Amino acid sequence: MSKKSVNKTKFLSRFPIIVEELTQSLKDYGMPQEAIDWFAKSLNHNTPGGKLNRGLSVVDTYVILKGYHDVEELDSKEYDQLALLGWCVELLQAYFLVADDMMDHSLTRRGQPCWYKVPDVGDIAINDSFMLEAAIYKLLKSHFKKESYYIDLIELFHEVTFQTELGQLLDLITAPEDKVDLTKFSLDKHSFIVIFKTAYYSFYLPVALAMYVAGITDEKDLKQARDVLIPLGEYFQIQDDYLDCFGTPEQIGKIGTDIQDNKCSWVINKALQLATPEQRTILDANYGQRNSESEAKCKKVFYDLKIDQEYTTYEEKIAKELQAQIAQVDESRGFKSQVLTTFLNKVYKRTK
Amino acid sequence: MSKKSVNKTKFLSRFPIIVEELTQSLKDYGMPQEAIDWFAKSLNHNTPGGKLNRGLSVVDTYVILKGYHDVEELDSKEYDQLALLGWCVELLQAYFLVADDMMDHSLTRRGQPCWYKVPDVGDIAINDSFMLEAAIYKLLKSHFKKESYYIDLIELFHEVTFQTELGQLLDLITAPEDKVDLTKFSLDKHSFIVIFKTAYYSFYLPVALAMYVAGITDEKDLKQARDVLIPLGEYFQIQDDYLDCFGTPEQIGKIGTDIQDNKCSWVINKALQLATPEQRTILDANYGQRNSESEAKCKKVFYDLKIDQEYTTYEEKIAKELQAQIAQVDESRGFKSQVLTTFLNKVYKRTK
Repeated sequence: MSKKSVNKTKFLSRFPIIVEELTQSLKDYGMPQEAIDWFAKSLNHNTPGGKLNRGLSVVDTYVILKGYHDVEELDSKEYDQLALLGWCVELLQAYFLVADDMMDHSLTRRGQPCWYKVPDVGDIAINDSFMLEAAIYKLLKSHFKKESYYIDLIELFHEVTFQTELGQLLDLITAPEDKVDLTKFSLDKHSFIVIFKTAYYSFYLPVALAMYVAGITDEKDLKQARDVLIPLGEYFQIQDDYLDCFGTPEQIGKIGTDIQDNKCSWVINKALQLATPEQRTILDANYGQRNSESEAKCKKVFYDLKIDQEYTTYEEKIAKELQAQIAQVDESRGFKSQVLTTFLNKVYKRTK
Repeated sequence: MSKKSVNKTKFLSRFPIIVEELTQSLKDYGMPQEAIDWFAKSLNHNTPGGKLNRGLSVVDTYVILKGYHDVEELDSKEYDQLALLGWCVELLQAYFLVADDMMDHSLTRRGQPCWYKVPDVGDIAINDSFMLEAAIYKLLKSHFKKESYYIDLIELFHEVTFQTELGQLLDLITAPEDKVDLTKFSLDKHSFIVIFKTAYYSFYLPVALAMYVAGITDEKDLKQARDVLIPLGEYFQIQDDYLDCFGTPEQIGKIGTDIQDNKCSWVINKALQLATPEQRTILDANYGQRNSESEAKCKKVFYDLKIDQEYTTYEEKIAKELQAQIAQVDESRGFKSQVLTTFLNKVYKRTK
């Protein structure tokens, strides 16, 4: 087994313990068993099952900050604390995804039905999403209340949650499923959406959490992390948008649907920036239409505009910039540029 | 104008200032104007417009705890802080109501369309509800971060939020709209549902917030408040259930729909406890059916079982118990029994 899957297995082994703690708190409230079972089912359906990159990166970042070389060097109490924060990030994501799937009318997620599509769940999923979020603060209280940085963890989760919701809001009103209006799109809005909706919680949050536990909490250091991780998160999402259109199904493990779904993707925004009036007319008439002929017409415009080459140019430029920025990192207060290099290496030239 | 409406007008006058502060924070993030306007519209649609009893009672409780006789005796900075906490309670309620209306498929709320029924909103209301909750913690941070009890306020909101969600979950799985199964009902479950879904956030939360600001924070005092306010909140909801069935439309300002809606109401639970097998058969066949003949059959059983008299007996008993408990309150650390008397007087023999 690779070191990565050993780490993932170890991380996964903490989750049942977290479910046990959370369901015990419901028992302590005197909650009837059927409701406890429901909550446990929601936790298990919605929280593990993904790649767990966000949760795992809390642990990995801490290992680097402490100068260790392997997760095994953490003592078990230390590991449990870090893994708990990792699971809190995964719970935050679960909270968002349960709701996003309802708002997007998605059918499946991670190879299983979306939670609201599970028999008897339906709209109760809204309240279940609330409870996934509430679980975060239950866990923070029971595991970190005595720490000096307890309030910092809470405020960080609050702020990142709000930022993600802002990104989600702008996305929803810019690119509603049923009303195509490309005049609402722009590269600036795309940038705001992906930074707020994805970069803060997926890239900055896990690192900042590990930094608090490691005692590296100077605002200058948090800023050093943010200044790389936010543009890196944006790059990650732009890459995702690129792969949805230009990646092969074998590469990305699914068939891209952004064009038919009227998604405010980097690809369409870049195309709108470069399109001739004739190409613009084609895009206006065909983007967000749920048929493969319209989709093919949009794709032809994208290829004619060489959006794939535009992407490669962007990728080389941003990777170089981020490398240069990482090289400038001030490690004098204990922050480590290797944290950022590790993240960049995971994203650069990723094809899945 | 009565003192009560003066107080309400004053409290309402703080809301635009809160909306201004929250929208400014979105501007500071660089959020496009259309999304700022959306958030402001959601705040204004969903937060004021109700009776504001919960928000106002934060201020009123503080006035009593400080030994003042009138809201006018608070200095303006003090008033603004208390009113802000009052609005945080109203924001919490707005968060729940936006979601509850979606889960219940309601059409109107407070004489206007439910938020998710407003044109172009739809399922985006889920994310809007998230943002109403997030607003609470933004406001707490900007107004209370320097206070020693800042973390207590946050933990209180977290705990009460979770409790309300637990009550909502049990309610949703016990009494789904479309699947009538009275074997799931019981007075014990009813008690859990109303205490968790209503009593904590409507009765305990406003008082506990005022106590923290007033510096009355001994766990013994919080417990004295809770020990009266939770059963009082349960009594309030039982009264609500009673009025839905037995109150006249003139009294309650609406036509009761609990029977047709398959609600897990005190009335049906009390009836189930007392029903003969024949009456039980009638209830099983007719409760939760969306027609007025079935409703009338249920009502006849309720009258035959004298549930209205059962309610009067319950009301007299609980009011006496609560009065006795209030008489025993220990005021030595600064808590005032008058806080509880004021609440009880608002509920006792209420007919609307």
